[in-house]
Amino acid sequence: MIRVKLTLSYVGTQYHGWQIQNNATSVQDTLQKALSQLYHIPISVQGCSRTDTGVHAKLFVCHFDACESIPMVKLPLALNALLPGDISAQFAQIVPNTFHARFSCKGKTYCYRVHNSRLRNPFEEYRSFFWSYPLDAMLMHREAQAFLGEHDFSAFMASGSEMENTVRRIDRFSVDRIGDVIEFRVTGNGFLYNMVRIMVGTLIYASMGKLDRSLSEIIQSRDRTLAGITVPPQGLYLEEVHY
Amino acid sequence: MIRVKLTLSYVGTQYHGWQIQNNATSVQDTLQKALSQLYHIPISVQGCSRTDTGVHAKLFVCHFDACESIPMVKLPLALNALLPGDISAQFAQIVPNTFHARFSCKGKTYCYRVHNSRLRNPFEEYRSFFWSYPLDAMLMHREAQAFLGEHDFSAFMASGSEMENTVRRIDRFSVDRIGDVIEFRVTGNGFLYNMVRIMVGTLIYASMGKLDRSLSEIIQSRDRTLAGITVPPQGLYLEEVHY
Repeated sequence: MIRVKLTLSYVGTQYHGWQIQNNATSVQDTLQKALSQLYHIPISVQGCSRTDTGVHAKLFVCHFDACESIPMVKLPLALNALLPGDISAQFAQIVPNTFHARFSCKGKTYCYRVHNSRLRNPFEEYRSFFWSYPLDAMLMHREAQAFLGEHDFSAFMASGSEMENTVRRIDRFSVDRIGDVIEFRVTGNGFLYNMVRIMVGTLIYASMGKLDRSLSEIIQSRDRTLAGITVPPQGLYLEEVHY
Repeated sequence: MIRVKLTLSYVGTQYHGWQIQNNATSVQDTLQKALSQLYHIPISVQGCSRTDTGVHAKLFVCHFDACESIPMVKLPLALNALLPGDISAQFAQIVPNTFHARFSCKGKTYCYRVHNSRLRNPFEEYRSFFWSYPLDAMLMHREAQAFLGEHDFSAFMASGSEMENTVRRIDRFSVDRIGDVIEFRVTGNGFLYNMVRIMVGTLIYASMGKLDRSLSEIIQSRDRTLAGITVPPQGLYLEEVHY
């Protein structure tokens, strides 16, 4: 048996996230069926993280154990022939048995796309969050630097989440405007549930002048009610997984 | 009554083209329903062209006659509230009654997108034509210059089409690679049925070394069988309408 590290891209719109669920189609489920068909034995895959319904992955990493019957260079193309058009295998390599897509992960980069324009762009439907009031990307970029470093991010976790350790380290946060799309890009060693979406919603509130406290104060408060909205999943893209 | 020139964008994937059809949803049909709801009287719209099932429009122009009840500056936003997410009104203006979206049109610009990569990109599904063999954009750009000027384009018309005058003028044709997407962009005074899609298919064949004749010879032959394939609709975008 060999361990295979597999890199995917997927459009999340049609899936109830990565993780297998009862009575709902997930990416994991769809991938396992294709792999099991390819290898003629049941294959189970381990993903680098759960993603929510509607969240996309420009790059998602998973691993599985299988026999050596299929050369790695041929695997993505062979697998894509069995996968639907909204999931595509990009790269496969043999890794040591100690590699684990989730537990070996040292960090991740997410991108959140906001379509900031007076009028909707139909090509952005399901691919970004539409926000029609003018936003200041420069201001949000400056504010976002308060997230850098190691903090207890309880204020940026979905209320009701159970998590023993709520300390995470953010290594990089940039906010850039490209035409009428604003890209929020954040790299960290881990993220609490809905953390990226609440950070983006809080920066939007900062730009709208809707926050009563500074970002540093909100982080320190550990109080979810002081942060901004949770922006919707369709703007979120897992972009890189760092090992 | 005033005449309104309305500019739209739409993702064509879910529609059987622009034109109203029996038992199939069209963009025209969807737009007319929204306009009729907005103006509280039946409104019929005239489009600048028919587009096929699955073809997109970054910019589509139509016109309709209505009372002056809604200010032009408010029309796009009001209309978008009634339109589905894959159609969006962008701009409205009052024009003279002599303006006709189709008959006043002096030319159009189409873009055709080919995703040219070894592996599929799920974000390009329904948005481009996937072609996995390497294509030479520089070669196709050079070859495409043979289309410029006024020609009988019978060789680039869907076989079986009835058209009295098959002479059209092409003013500009460019082929550019942006990463793994090749954009074919063509401006002309008019286009025969499937003409852009056959021109692109023929340039792809030229790059693949699959053509027995030069492009000039194929144009002169007026013989559809000498040209290349008709590439599928999902890569085609109406991009500009010139008046």
